[in-house]
Amino acid sequence: MLPYKSLIKVDRKTSISLHIQVCNTFISLITNGTLKPSDALPGSRILAELIVINRNTVKLAYEELINQGWAESIERKGVFVLARLPIISRTRLPEAGKSNAPQKAFLWTDHFEDALPGKDLQKPTLAIDDGFPDVRLAPVNELMREYRSLFRKVYGKKYLKYGGSRGSEHLRVAICNYLSNTRGLVVSADNILITKGSQMGIYLAAQLLLQPGDPIAVGISNYGSADAAFRYTGANLLRIPVDSRGMNVDHLEKLLKRKKIKAVYIIPHHHFPTTVTMSVERRMKLLNLAKEHRFAIIEDDYDFDFHYDNNPYLPLASIDHNHNVIYIGSISKTFAPALRIGFMVGPAEFIQSASALRDLIDKQGDTLLEEAFAQLFDDGEMERHFRKSLKIYKQRRDLFCQILRADLAKAITFRVPEGGLAVWAEFDKKIDLHRMSEDASKKGLYIDNGDFYKNEAFVTNAMRLGFASLTDNEMIKALGILKKIIC
Amino acid sequence: MLPYKSLIKVDRKTSISLHIQVCNTFISLITNGTLKPSDALPGSRILAELIVINRNTVKLAYEELINQGWAESIERKGVFVLARLPIISRTRLPEAGKSNAPQKAFLWTDHFEDALPGKDLQKPTLAIDDGFPDVRLAPVNELMREYRSLFRKVYGKKYLKYGGSRGSEHLRVAICNYLSNTRGLVVSADNILITKGSQMGIYLAAQLLLQPGDPIAVGISNYGSADAAFRYTGANLLRIPVDSRGMNVDHLEKLLKRKKIKAVYIIPHHHFPTTVTMSVERRMKLLNLAKEHRFAIIEDDYDFDFHYDNNPYLPLASIDHNHNVIYIGSISKTFAPALRIGFMVGPAEFIQSASALRDLIDKQGDTLLEEAFAQLFDDGEMERHFRKSLKIYKQRRDLFCQILRADLAKAITFRVPEGGLAVWAEFDKKIDLHRMSEDASKKGLYIDNGDFYKNEAFVTNAMRLGFASLTDNEMIKALGILKKIIC
Repeated sequence: MLPYKSLIKVDRKTSISLHIQVCNTFISLITNGTLKPSDALPGSRILAELIVINRNTVKLAYEELINQGWAESIERKGVFVLARLPIISRTRLPEAGKSNAPQKAFLWTDHFEDALPGKDLQKPTLAIDDGFPDVRLAPVNELMREYRSLFRKVYGKKYLKYGGSRGSEHLRVAICNYLSNTRGLVVSADNILITKGSQMGIYLAAQLLLQPGDPIAVGISNYGSADAAFRYTGANLLRIPVDSRGMNVDHLEKLLKRKKIKAVYIIPHHHFPTTVTMSVERRMKLLNLAKEHRFAIIEDDYDFDFHYDNNPYLPLASIDHNHNVIYIGSISKTFAPALRIGFMVGPAEFIQSASALRDLIDKQGDTLLEEAFAQLFDDGEMERHFRKSLKIYKQRRDLFCQILRADLAKAITFRVPEGGLAVWAEFDKKIDLHRMSEDASKKGLYIDNGDFYKNEAFVTNAMRLGFASLTDNEMIKALGILKKIIC
Repeated sequence: MLPYKSLIKVDRKTSISLHIQVCNTFISLITNGTLKPSDALPGSRILAELIVINRNTVKLAYEELINQGWAESIERKGVFVLARLPIISRTRLPEAGKSNAPQKAFLWTDHFEDALPGKDLQKPTLAIDDGFPDVRLAPVNELMREYRSLFRKVYGKKYLKYGGSRGSEHLRVAICNYLSNTRGLVVSADNILITKGSQMGIYLAAQLLLQPGDPIAVGISNYGSADAAFRYTGANLLRIPVDSRGMNVDHLEKLLKRKKIKAVYIIPHHHFPTTVTMSVERRMKLLNLAKEHRFAIIEDDYDFDFHYDNNPYLPLASIDHNHNVIYIGSISKTFAPALRIGFMVGPAEFIQSASALRDLIDKQGDTLLEEAFAQLFDDGEMERHFRKSLKIYKQRRDLFCQILRADLAKAITFRVPEGGLAVWAEFDKKIDLHRMSEDASKKGLYIDNGDFYKNEAFVTNAMRLGFASLTDNEMIKALGILKKIIC
């Protein structure tokens, strides 16, 4: 008989009943090969004494094993492991001296073999980030009030049921009003899909527009996560130069003479990573090219709300009379990155296709949060929050740039950005950004190493320095550490 | 001069400043072709009088137009639309008699042309659904308490920042404990990715495992949204018969003699839609086949928590010594469909690839909800909720089946399901389910038409009748309406 006394341990403190614990232990013994088909289980009286348990508990455990099809009871003989149960064959461990890496049990796409774990930015206390909002400004109490009021209503709990894949109609209408008021973009709720942040909009557009080998035009410098979403479709990324007036549309025009493209991806308001704004002339020309060559313009306008000096430029979507633009925006960037609500605006049929794809990916968004955000728009709370943040971020930009100029001019060249939440800082070429990042980390400052901004066509010793998430004191402290390291 | 008096309307009630309103109106006039490059804008004094506005406001508007690059000021002559501005060419409306359907401005994949809008189930008050939980049982007050307490903590707001694409570590650890306690599934946080409901797990697995043309085995009857996710990759779906002991693994074995497959998708605990449980023998045999032929088993166990009669069967993942299983589960199904939290368990390297793909799709989950759920697990609140729902749903299943037997036996054949939230009801073949659905709708009852359960290989006059979301009274009322229509 097996050493059941040491093999079967029961725990009287958990909520799992004892007979299930015994039953599950037997299942392990069977599946790991300790007990084989046709092996006899010990008599219930013997086992009960061995493991100090009531005999009826053992009987219940055996009944469960029989019910589930692991064992069979043979009259006057006892309980046995089911004779016809297949034995699980096990992978042998690699022999000594052979490779230690076990063979994968099955194969999958190697697209992501070199992927690094996603950054978790919740841990560092002092960080110069890529241009994130200050979550401490988020009107959390107002959000909680909306949540409570949703539940208080008689039908409040309906928001906990499945909703449509397009997102809350209430929020889609609220966003229509918001787009019309702030950007002169007049659309209806049928032109809007609520997404999880702007990344989902980019992913959906990429999936719908691009097949393997299809050409898409993007900036030489570009938002890496958009590049990755395009590359994942197997598309061919054509790099177009970006200068101080945004993407060079004349260059694109020349390219179009010899090549058909499916789409162009731009971030015209504040190009990522360099923060430049696309000129009106180029915008108009790009719209004309899109019409003539029938390609889509994916306009990523994730930080429209943050523009400090003059009035923000209207997006291309607002002057797109031929419906070539798929417009992508985000409220997460304005409210809090972890509350992921974004939107995609486009021709109603395209939005219908995007909703159907979204249904495959994750069915729907967080209806409760969508309703609460809609309510915050209706109350004017969202607008108040935007105005308040804008004012604070402008002050922070000014102080940040002032310190950079005063203390770090030897190491960093930059232009004051007209909008957005970060400065594009070009570092003296003698400064090794990887080492800077490591040195800063030792002094308690998280700062990236610039790799995210590079790609096969864009090599630079520059990076974005986010100012919005830092209070004056934090900024002084953070830039003080940086100065010590690089100046 | 253009009729500016009627073209330019300002609204003194909005928060948008007047000069921006005037500026944006000029932008519209330029982009829609009313004003052309080199056209003169009216003098500021004249325009101010015409539209009854301060002259300085007009000046500010012109300055803004010039700043943004729409217009230029020519000394001693006035302000003009920028001479070198490209004119936007417009699509002509189709001529009379020609097709009214305008040509698409750009083309996209036609995968989703026939897609129906996602079902929005928040509206109907009385519904027999597909097997949804009763959101009225969700411990919403406890959830709100966790939210409040997260914000009260000094570092509470950190949960509003970006988190990792793998999901909250706190929740991953809580789910490890939960899986170990309930399913004997011993894994570490590195084996877990938090997803948005189980659909995202299915989508991610499909994307990673399948390339166009790759074969995947699925049931003849199967969960339609999983089929759709597999089909979207271009994979080749091989249909395997499903009987009262689940998927026929002998059939799969024969198929494997002539064909290599990449994966098999099963819902062994309660097959969708028919609710049958896969036998232990078949589970063991399937694990052996997976090892021998190196394919992945996608085990969808979305409703493990609901099993009424004997102890639930342990999932294949719990006895998978060779790591062939990708295990997908959901808390949404147990808590509330709109609060979308699910999980995927698999080899650490596979989970790393899935996290990288998830990063492309939507960066991360809802960290705040993830933390709150983790806390509910830690408090034991989640378990209390599961136990309470299980008891209520068992009573509902019993009453529902009793009424079906007593009142609808003439029209419906069914087996009492051992678990899950729905009965698989086979209707008399004379009953037209589409008509039934329409007739019910007229009497205030939402019930589907059965199309979701059909596919190219599975034609049946049956559908799932969800019992869990109905109170006793609602059940009596709903089935009463159904009886009047079909008996």
